[in-house]
Amino acid sequence: MEKRERIYLFDTTLRDGQQTPGIDFSVEDKIAIAGMLDAVGIDYVEGGYPGANPTDTAFFAERRTTRAKLTAFGMTKRAGVSASNDPGLATLLDSQSDAVCLVAKSWDYHVDVALGISNDENLVCICESVKAVAAAAKEAMVDCEHFFDGYKANRDYALACAKTAYDAGARWIVLCDTNGGTQPDEVTEIVADVIAAGIPGTFLGIHAHNDTGQAVANSLAAVRAGVRQVQGTLNGIGERCGNANIITLAATLALKPRYMNRFVLGIDAEGLTELTGLSRGFDELLNRAPDPQLPYVGASAFATKAGIHASALLKDPKTYEHVDPEQVGNMRRVMVSDQGGKSNFINELQKRGIVVSKDDPRLDRLIAMVKEREAAGYAYEGADASFELLALRELGSVPHFFHVDSFRVMVERRYDSHGRIKTVSEAVVKLDIDGRPVMSVSEGDGPVNALDRAFRKDLGKFQSEIADLKLADYKVRILNGGTDAITRVLIESIDDDGVRWWTVGVSENIIDASFQALVDSIVFKLMKNRKMAGRAAAE
Amino acid sequence: MEKRERIYLFDTTLRDGQQTPGIDFSVEDKIAIAGMLDAVGIDYVEGGYPGANPTDTAFFAERRTTRAKLTAFGMTKRAGVSASNDPGLATLLDSQSDAVCLVAKSWDYHVDVALGISNDENLVCICESVKAVAAAAKEAMVDCEHFFDGYKANRDYALACAKTAYDAGARWIVLCDTNGGTQPDEVTEIVADVIAAGIPGTFLGIHAHNDTGQAVANSLAAVRAGVRQVQGTLNGIGERCGNANIITLAATLALKPRYMNRFVLGIDAEGLTELTGLSRGFDELLNRAPDPQLPYVGASAFATKAGIHASALLKDPKTYEHVDPEQVGNMRRVMVSDQGGKSNFINELQKRGIVVSKDDPRLDRLIAMVKEREAAGYAYEGADASFELLALRELGSVPHFFHVDSFRVMVERRYDSHGRIKTVSEAVVKLDIDGRPVMSVSEGDGPVNALDRAFRKDLGKFQSEIADLKLADYKVRILNGGTDAITRVLIESIDDDGVRWWTVGVSENIIDASFQALVDSIVFKLMKNRKMAGRAAAE
Repeated sequence: MEKRERIYLFDTTLRDGQQTPGIDFSVEDKIAIAGMLDAVGIDYVEGGYPGANPTDTAFFAERRTTRAKLTAFGMTKRAGVSASNDPGLATLLDSQSDAVCLVAKSWDYHVDVALGISNDENLVCICESVKAVAAAAKEAMVDCEHFFDGYKANRDYALACAKTAYDAGARWIVLCDTNGGTQPDEVTEIVADVIAAGIPGTFLGIHAHNDTGQAVANSLAAVRAGVRQVQGTLNGIGERCGNANIITLAATLALKPRYMNRFVLGIDAEGLTELTGLSRGFDELLNRAPDPQLPYVGASAFATKAGIHASALLKDPKTYEHVDPEQVGNMRRVMVSDQGGKSNFINELQKRGIVVSKDDPRLDRLIAMVKEREAAGYAYEGADASFELLALRELGSVPHFFHVDSFRVMVERRYDSHGRIKTVSEAVVKLDIDGRPVMSVSEGDGPVNALDRAFRKDLGKFQSEIADLKLADYKVRILNGGTDAITRVLIESIDDDGVRWWTVGVSENIIDASFQALVDSIVFKLMKNRKMAGRAAAE
Repeated sequence: MEKRERIYLFDTTLRDGQQTPGIDFSVEDKIAIAGMLDAVGIDYVEGGYPGANPTDTAFFAERRTTRAKLTAFGMTKRAGVSASNDPGLATLLDSQSDAVCLVAKSWDYHVDVALGISNDENLVCICESVKAVAAAAKEAMVDCEHFFDGYKANRDYALACAKTAYDAGARWIVLCDTNGGTQPDEVTEIVADVIAAGIPGTFLGIHAHNDTGQAVANSLAAVRAGVRQVQGTLNGIGERCGNANIITLAATLALKPRYMNRFVLGIDAEGLTELTGLSRGFDELLNRAPDPQLPYVGASAFATKAGIHASALLKDPKTYEHVDPEQVGNMRRVMVSDQGGKSNFINELQKRGIVVSKDDPRLDRLIAMVKEREAAGYAYEGADASFELLALRELGSVPHFFHVDSFRVMVERRYDSHGRIKTVSEAVVKLDIDGRPVMSVSEGDGPVNALDRAFRKDLGKFQSEIADLKLADYKVRILNGGTDAITRVLIESIDDDGVRWWTVGVSENIIDASFQALVDSIVFKLMKNRKMAGRAAAE
């Protein structure tokens, strides 16, 4: 195999990704994300625009990456002043960055309307700014804004902007599809023309947006046409429809034969296995639910719920999966769902150490019950612990730990003696444990928190067993519009063994739904303790 | 302009889309969705697999579309029995469908392993099944499953399967990238080879999956290579990473010069303007939040929050938008957000008839307050009414309608006299209207519903004004893990004028957050009434 060419991955999550509606990174966020990108082997991390806002200025006050080149984004110098007298440019050169990416207008229309200078003045700004960056011993790159639209409007001028940057010594000239409407075959043609105009592909980058759902395809088309730097963002965040998803690009370039045989990335095989964690860790940091359908790394990317497919899949995964999920740190899922066939159920139960024969009538009852409850709003795909309890109950092996006689939750908002608004949440839970009534009361930060505290305040003889049980996450989903809709609550619990489990509750009453999930969580914990004890005894 | 070629859009939301984890359609869902697809001008609606499950059998008991061809999906006849004696095939032929799409294995490996028959037997099954469909006076199509992977493993056999279907009289031979890993340039090469093998492109379809984020690109590559039927699903739902998004495909084929000048769809200009409503209506039916970044139809697809861009955008949208949002029924959004510059705010306020000068100190105070509150968890991008109230309060023009002295919400779960579990929600609200105390109590289906009812039970002299106010939707978002996290509540209200508005509340207490949103909703309604009255008086 002849020597493979290097493709450089450039991440702009912290700069262009910041344009995503609803997303704003703190300095701490940026430091954490830069570290995550650095760890997997991304080549360039664009951190923001030092000087434009306090966050980005603070971020660039220190080196934030070890392997990756930390890149500062900014504008070319203003017309009329020399590079050395341009305060904006000075801030970029002073920042703790290895590289500086200068955005330059390459569509003559914008040069005129947005900058209000002549086409030639703009070329001078590009040339002198690039030279200033190089003189400061930083790697210079130029984002040719609106390049593809500019090329269609005035080919010669768009090319002149790119060529000027190249001739001035820019390491990378990045062709940006700023408005995101360019089609892959147009990218192919235009990139070929740029290379023909004298800029080697090894100096060219592609920056694509997803406005026609083809940001990844446009980026790969550019690579096939000769471009060697690819820009993208984590999970494809970005302005409007987002940027190219850098995780999808990395996985495709590294795992698809026609790319892996020709190219090599800064991400090695181990880095690849971290992509799923990178994608989900990023969403966690954003406090948002990961998209299960994300290519390669989504929770559903290698999931199937079709009964027939599922059984065939288990026979020979290779013929149903385009890559091995483990190469990107993801896993195969054959899901419990009301479309799932018997084989799915048996498989799911076996995973949990529950053995039941294919023709056991209790299995049919369990399947019927799951279908019925999923129809009512329960979602066992996302609540493994509640599913396991449901199965064990049907198979008659869940001991009777306690009985809930009643609970009461009260939320009151009033003015305190100092005239300040005060909201108090209080919960009372009445349990019966071995015929002994146990009544607990607690306040909380909200009704669910108060209920959780009261419930776990005194579990009689089981109290010590749940001492290490903590709630890790709480999700609410309204299943059909209106405040009187059905509510589904998912609760994630964790204990000192580091084990995590999800439980579900469904009711027209959010408190009631939360309570169901809390009860399942505690019963699951008690069952888990007994399983552990059993294992320990067996060893 | 020479005559444009017809491209046929084939929607498989109700069949392949049904494979999406977490999605299961009822018969009513399917009828509603088929109607939506029919209305915009989709050519084929694949409704499911009659005979495979009660839902699909019931769906195909009647004609469900008027313009679109209703298509039933199923398998080719089993080997060993004649087409006329195959019960599965019989069910397909008896169904109320205009067309039948038969799935056929075209990868020899699967013919052997999954079907356990010889390659020739499989060809016979394809041939006879197609003939049986044609004989039943239905349009016959064949989904060549695993076509692209099959082609790479055994080109001649994959081609033989497609050719057999064509020679037997199939109207469409659909090339399926079942595992979703094929790259656009592979699609281009392989489709060209299929056409060279003697099947005209006007008889070929493409069925792409999104496992490398290129389902749309693969579909369009196939179109450029000669294929004339394109399959997809609403919002790209489907197994694993989903299918090609048929809305993105329709918009791109209809609005991008290199396609619109060559091709024509069954969707006319008016149908195009319904695409945004179709996409969001579908998510509404699924009770899930629409993805704001969806190409063309997402809430963010034409949104910008960058201060500089925003001002330039308003000068001349064409140079910042790849298509006109109104062509697909979407709209431009310049958003209020803590990245938004003054121009955004002034623009947002003007839209609401609030005029404030650029250097009015109150404007700076308002911007500061919005940033502060968004930092605390409020999201004014999604709560237009709460934003308007915040602005009007800052500008000192919201009258004092009423004062909330206190409220109390109680949720109790216990056993009733018949030993049945019973959960009761009750709320008490104490208001002060012109110094007159008003106290109301109500039960509800849940705490928020009870609070809403009690609150709106008696608003004194304003009661008649809010008689037509209804809650249309209620959304809960937990902003950081744990049950004691911050909760954001968004409430959508509607009145008899058909006007809809969103209000927001944020608190560590979900009841408190809901109450804030309820108060804003009612105050907004009272303000709205006065605005209307003012207009009426002016006329």
